Amino acid sequence: MRLAQLARLKGFERLTDIDNALSIFFKKLELKRMKPVQIPVKKSLGRVTAGDVIAAYDLPRFNRSAMDGYAVKARDTFEASQFNPRALRLTEDKKVQKNEARRIWTGNPLPSGANAVVMLEHTKEIQDGIEVWTSVTPGENVSKKGEDVRKGEMAIRDGTRLGPHHVALLAALGLVQVSVREKPKVAVLSTGNELIDLGCKLKSGQVLDVNRLLLSCMCAELGVETVDLGIATDDADAISIKIREALKKAHVTITTGGTSVGKADLVPGVVNSIGEPGVLVHGIAMRPGMPTGLAILHGKPIIMLSGNPVAAMIGFEIFGRPLLTNLLGLEDEQRPMVKARLTNRVASALGRRVFLRVHVVEKDNEFFAEPVRIRGSGILSTLTKANGYVAIPEDREGLEKGEPITVHLFDRIGAA
Amino acid sequence: MRLAQLARLKGFERLTDIDNALSIFFKKLELKRMKPVQIPVKKSLGRVTAGDVIAAYDLPRFNRSAMDGYAVKARDTFEASQFNPRALRLTEDKKVQKNEARRIWTGNPLPSGANAVVMLEHTKEIQDGIEVWTSVTPGENVSKKGEDVRKGEMAIRDGTRLGPHHVALLAALGLVQVSVREKPKVAVLSTGNELIDLGCKLKSGQVLDVNRLLLSCMCAELGVETVDLGIATDDADAISIKIREALKKAHVTITTGGTSVGKADLVPGVVNSIGEPGVLVHGIAMRPGMPTGLAILHGKPIIMLSGNPVAAMIGFEIFGRPLLTNLLGLEDEQRPMVKARLTNRVASALGRRVFLRVHVVEKDNEFFAEPVRIRGSGILSTLTKANGYVAIPEDREGLEKGEPITVHLFDRIGAA
Repeated sequence: MRLAQLARLKGFERLTDIDNALSIFFKKLELKRMKPVQIPVKKSLGRVTAGDVIAAYDLPRFNRSAMDGYAVKARDTFEASQFNPRALRLTEDKKVQKNEARRIWTGNPLPSGANAVVMLEHTKEIQDGIEVWTSVTPGENVSKKGEDVRKGEMAIRDGTRLGPHHVALLAALGLVQVSVREKPKVAVLSTGNELIDLGCKLKSGQVLDVNRLLLSCMCAELGVETVDLGIATDDADAISIKIREALKKAHVTITTGGTSVGKADLVPGVVNSIGEPGVLVHGIAMRPGMPTGLAILHGKPIIMLSGNPVAAMIGFEIFGRPLLTNLLGLEDEQRPMVKARLTNRVASALGRRVFLRVHVVEKDNEFFAEPVRIRGSGILSTLTKANGYVAIPEDREGLEKGEPITVHLFDRIGAA
Repeated sequence: MRLAQLARLKGFERLTDIDNALSIFFKKLELKRMKPVQIPVKKSLGRVTAGDVIAAYDLPRFNRSAMDGYAVKARDTFEASQFNPRALRLTEDKKVQKNEARRIWTGNPLPSGANAVVMLEHTKEIQDGIEVWTSVTPGENVSKKGEDVRKGEMAIRDGTRLGPHHVALLAALGLVQVSVREKPKVAVLSTGNELIDLGCKLKSGQVLDVNRLLLSCMCAELGVETVDLGIATDDADAISIKIREALKKAHVTITTGGTSVGKADLVPGVVNSIGEPGVLVHGIAMRPGMPTGLAILHGKPIIMLSGNPVAAMIGFEIFGRPLLTNLLGLEDEQRPMVKARLTNRVASALGRRVFLRVHVVEKDNEFFAEPVRIRGSGILSTLTKANGYVAIPEDREGLEKGEPITVHLFDRIGAA
């Protein structure tokens, strides 16, 4: 059966491929980065810089020793060698005079008078002083004022996700506040008569709604806040009220369920009833996640995901992640990737991009990816048994055993 | 100069290599994992399971459709083919009778009477019913009760760091609480007369203390809490008071500064004055980080790091990370690693493990690591310019240009 025919059977006018869907969505959105906010450097771990950080001071702020040894006047060591050591008098004075040396440790300010440091291992202690076995040039073994970062220099680039080392550098530069992107708020809504809230007692045919929690956790990993809109029944009015609430409270809305034509297209229909432009794309050439939809209302993005948790996770990955990282001002924050060999042949679906869950192990210094499963978009344990996914291109009918592939990792790699 | 001689010059009796240091430390510690605590599943992202999670129910809890299509009695489709379609009557009744079909969507419970699902694409709508073009066997296209996780099965292993997909599975299994390891508390103390607190005005020769913030952030990344003990001056009594406080308040103590013999061995001396066994190792054959020390007091681990931020970061990485991940019950949680080629020759220090900071880029489907710097343990920008480090083994004098190396990544990889 041809793909177009299958799409129509499933009630979609046509299927849009992922790249086109992303391009239509982002073009129409005219995405602006979140606005900058000032926050304390102490609380900036994981946040994303808004604007380059320019050093207001030299770092280090003074000349300091780069080595353990002795601060000296370089000239006093000229011509010193192992066969012709120079003797210097030890001093503890603030100022180092001619023919004097002062003990110094890595990081200590260079005492005035001195302009170089002789490394400990090139000296020997003698009565009242030291013997120097090597000559040093002016500035040798000295970490110069501004050597780390110079005043006026760009210390951290715009759009940097701040790690511990960035936070430390900001602090070292004397900054107390830093300008970062405001966290986007994502409203998360589940739809479905069969769904009940976590912690409730299940009646026959009911299903616990895990999607809001799953999406909240995925948002949290990206450093994004969620607004929990709860569950809407399969009722246009109920869904409409929730989506209008989402548009008021959040920058982005993500719904799950009610996008398959099995439920009479409920969410896309409601979105179109609220305003323009409404649904831009509905029905994507991907597996899982065919019923995914992308919409805009009041200038704000709406991502309509499948109600199946695995399809919802992949849908978030493909559409939610680039949207949110772009809002945060990150150019392209992808998951860690690894090159691996596929341990088994897998079939795919020509015309659709298929997301194969795999379990990557390391063996003999090489990575191997074992397919966990393509089908079963409701089977959560296919995610917990996997540690990554492979995107099989639309023009492939499958992947061969032993084929080199790129795995996007969502969990750690263990030994085989 | 021989290494032993250098060590003595710097005031260490001997240098211990990293592997020995770790083994002495961990053996003496008789490390016990943190105790289990029950927490809400909703707040469990990033926590580490304490004990296997066993499913108390089948997941799914009922037979459900794995496909969009029609629920049927399999026997009614036997011998159906494209040339010999079988006509079935459409029903909306709860129970599917002989020669009936009921529309069903992925995830819906299988109606009673039906035992298989015919995929939408293998059917055609006709007046009052459908034509089926293919035969299905009993159970075909049905996601069976317990297919995802069977009651009594281990759903998530002990010592798993919970990602969004794990949290979703816990929730789907009907769990509201989950047993995870208590977060270890790490007391963080800086020592040094030259240090002042972040946000304070610097006087000449003073340095902002970034180490506590750096270490707090690194702990936060591991899901570990810190207790900020502030700064102690280079005074045995001041340090002693702080370390006794740390032993009361935290599971682990990490100090920075005052471990180099340049400051008369202050912290190790104080630790030894407090009790047994005290300092186990002081002086490690590594660069940066030679003055690192490892100690135990009151059965609790103490890691004494260099006051230089880069050396402190590497020291935390090598000794703090395995200690804390072991306390959390994680077998071996390493940073993501990548294989790359070194773009330039680098010299190393024979007899010491040298941590080279590198910047990895991807080019033509291969990773290249550009050395940022070996020396300059105080130069923070060497960390922000790098995205990973390479450990050069003790028996190497350097690494060759083009040599394949393994990089431990602490930041993302960009394009060249």
